[in-house]
Parts: sequence; C-alpha cells; structure tokens
Amino acid sequence: MRKTIRKYTDRPVDDGLLNQLLERACRASNTGNMQTYSVVVTRDMEQKKRLSPAHFNQPMVLQAPVVLTFCADYNRFSHWCRLRQAEPCYDNLQSLVGAGIDAMLVAQEFATAAEEAGLGLCFLGTTTYNAQEICEVLRLPRLVVPVTTITLGWPAENPELQDRLPLDGIVHHEQYADYTDADIDRIYAEKEALESSKRFIEENGKQTLAQVFTEVRYTREGCETFSEKFRDALVRQGFVK
Amino acid sequence: MRKTIRKYTDRPVDDGLLNQLLERACRASNTGNMQTYSVVVTRDMEQKKRLSPAHFNQPMVLQAPVVLTFCADYNRFSHWCRLRQAEPCYDNLQSLVGAGIDAMLVAQEFATAAEEAGLGLCFLGTTTYNAQEICEVLRLPRLVVPVTTITLGWPAENPELQDRLPLDGIVHHEQYADYTDADIDRIYAEKEALESSKRFIEENGKQTLAQVFTEVRYTREGCETFSEKFRDALVRQGFVK
Repeated sequence: MRKTIRKYTDRPVDDGLLNQLLERACRASNTGNMQTYSVVVTRDMEQKKRLSPAHFNQPMVLQAPVVLTFCADYNRFSHWCRLRQAEPCYDNLQSLVGAGIDAMLVAQEFATAAEEAGLGLCFLGTTTYNAQEICEVLRLPRLVVPVTTITLGWPAENPELQDRLPLDGIVHHEQYADYTDADIDRIYAEKEALESSKRFIEENGKQTLAQVFTEVRYTREGCETFSEKFRDALVRQGFVK
Repeated sequence: MRKTIRKYTDRPVDDGLLNQLLERACRASNTGNMQTYSVVVTRDMEQKKRLSPAHFNQPMVLQAPVVLTFCADYNRFSHWCRLRQAEPCYDNLQSLVGAGIDAMLVAQEFATAAEEAGLGLCFLGTTTYNAQEICEVLRLPRLVVPVTTITLGWPAENPELQDRLPLDGIVHHEQYADYTDADIDRIYAEKEALESSKRFIEENGKQTLAQVFTEVRYTREGCETFSEKFRDALVRQGFVK
C-alpha cells in the first residue's frame, strides 16, 4: 500500500536500477506515441542546493539521493519535425496539456515501479509553484515545462497510512451527482474525527479543519500568486501567449 | 508490459472488482490530501452514445463495458469549506493544475491496477479537446473539469508492443542537454525504420513521418482550435477568468 516517504537511508540508488525503473515508466500510455516528456535526474549536491529553494527548502530535496523532475517537452519533438521538412505547431495550450498529462502518467508509473522495488518516494507539488526557477536551474529550453518532482531513496521511515475519503464520495455513476450538505458531512466525517485533524486545528489556532486549508495551507493570496507565476512561466517557455 | 487495448469481449466488469480498483487508485499521492478529483463511471449505453461524439466517435467508447472520466474537482472541497466557516479560493490556474495532476495520478494508478487484474484499457486524449461537451453530458458543475478518460474491459486483442524512444533520448542528467541534429537523428532512427512508420507515410502521401504528425494528426489548425475550446471550458467551469 503506497505511503509517502520523506526520509531516506544513506544507501545509494544505483544507476542500473534507476534506468530499469525509467524504462518501465516510459511504457505508460502517451498521446500519439510522441513521448513529449523528459525526465531530469539530479544527484549532484550542488544542483540539489540550487533546486531546493524552488521547493521551499523541503528537506527531502537535499536528503534524497535522487531527485527526478518530470517535464512536458515539445522541444525534442519540434526539433525532429524541423529536421524532417515538417513545421511543428505545438506552442499552444492543448499541446502543453497533452504533454503534461503524458509526463504525469510516466511519473506515476515510475512511482509504482520504484515502490515495487522497495524504494520510497515523495511527490513535490511545489514544481508548478516555482516552475520558472526550476527551468533556470535545470536549463530547460523553450517548450519544456516541469510538471512534477519525485524525491527518491531507500526508506528510513514507515509512516502510518493516510486517510482517504470514502469511495462513494469520489465516484459518480452516469452523471455527476452534486453533493448535498448532508453528503458533505458524511464524506468528511472520518477525516474530521482523526486525532491528527484535531491537532492540526489546535496547532494553527483555527476553528475548523477547512480553515487550516483556506487560511494557512492553500490561501487565496498563495493560490493567486502562484497562478500568475505559473502563467508567466508558461509564456516564457512558449506554450501560452 | 502495458499495451493499449481497444477491443473488449462481452464479459462484464463487475462492480466489486471495479470498486477494488478505484480504492487502490485513490491511494495515489495527492496534494495536501485534499483529493480534489472525481471519477464518473459510465456503463449505460445511452450515456455512452452521448459521450461518443466528444471522443470523435472512437469505437472504444461504445464497445467498452465501462468508460471512466477522471476529473479535476474543487467543487466538493469548496462545498466542504463553505459548510465549515472557511472561504474557498480555488477558482484559479494553480488549483486547476494541482487538481489535474492529482486526477492523472489516480488515473494511472487505476490503469496499473486494472492491468494487473487482467483487464485491458485505452486512455482517450480527446477528453481535453472536447471538455465542454463532456461537462454537459456528465453534468459537471463549476470547478469540475474532465482531464482524461479510460475505456475498460476484458481484452479481445493482443496487439504488438509499441516502440519507444531510447531512454537516453528522454532522460537528462543534472541539466537539460539540448539535442544536436545528430542526437535527433539517432533518437528517432529506430522509430523511422519501422515498417509501420513507412506504411504510415505512404498511406498519408507524405515524405516524412514527422509530416504525418504536423500535417495530418496534430495540425496547427487542430491544436489552436482545441486550445481555444479548452480555454473556454476552463473559463466556463470557473478555473480561469
């Protein structure tokens, strides 16, 4: 059962194993078999130190033996087109979305393969918050944008399984059945009753768990700032005008 | 080894199995454990007929016993916030991107679980081309957008494994090493030498495989039209202004 692992032992992740996992990851489905993604592998401590601020200095970036940045990439494919008397036309939103989706499928397939091999990992959502800084550190050219990051190593912790909403709160049949207030109460009841949720509310001095999200973790100011920053990154990388 | 399956037997996919697979899929990592995604399960033939044009009438939609539409969903979470004296603020690009990423991780984890159970499936990239039509058929409310679709059933075909680019054409170390013309020639050599590629060029009356992509399959006109359509869908669903 998958668990996020944020602490790693000193044991290195060998190149042969990493390549096997990446080979398997690239078997994931992709749009038109164009494989419009790239993976940048960071092992060098100096490079990790440069990446770290873009991930808000979360300690996994420096501590993990391997950091993988998964990117939507239309640079390689467009270069191929130009060399083959074809005019590439992938500087637009739909191409970005397709390439981003394909990069995510590869990332998740990589995660599954890595966990099966006994490795531990953590996805970093900060990748799209500070995409421009990551582009600079990794020297990503036009038509390449990072979409997610995985920190990887041999597990040095075994955390408890995280809660999940009941399945019938996530799945709809035939049409989306919008939630009544009673549905919401029921779907979130287990999460709200957790000791960890109560601690979370108290530590942050809030009245409800939802307030911890809207007022502390994912605030309007943060969401809007990082939306603008990401939009700027997409313009600079050539996907949006 | 994963293969896209587009033909399915008449054997039904039972609800118990489907729920098991969805439970496992929801174990995928997600941002802040907010689970900002939903899955709409379509089994009803009338509903499939309504969905079919949005997927350009690809025959899998009608033929598969189950069609699953994976959606970025901030509607449920925002409803919870409003019921708990918290003001939701997720009507923006960064929230969409986070929710979209989480929905893709669930979709790929679902695919892996389904294949391990012996099922066959196909991802439909058309989901973001015609998102607005899908929103209407599935009655997706504000702050819900479909990101990918899986058609699912018991395999009635066993196609050959598709080619992939060599791994060193996809993976970069420490920094993105932009491709020279010689790199591109080498990376695409195997794909270009395939009999299927040669047939593809001939059938479409083109000179190069790249031209089949830029002039037939993923043209500028198509990419730009579907970029605008998707942007409109994002505006209508409330993620973009």
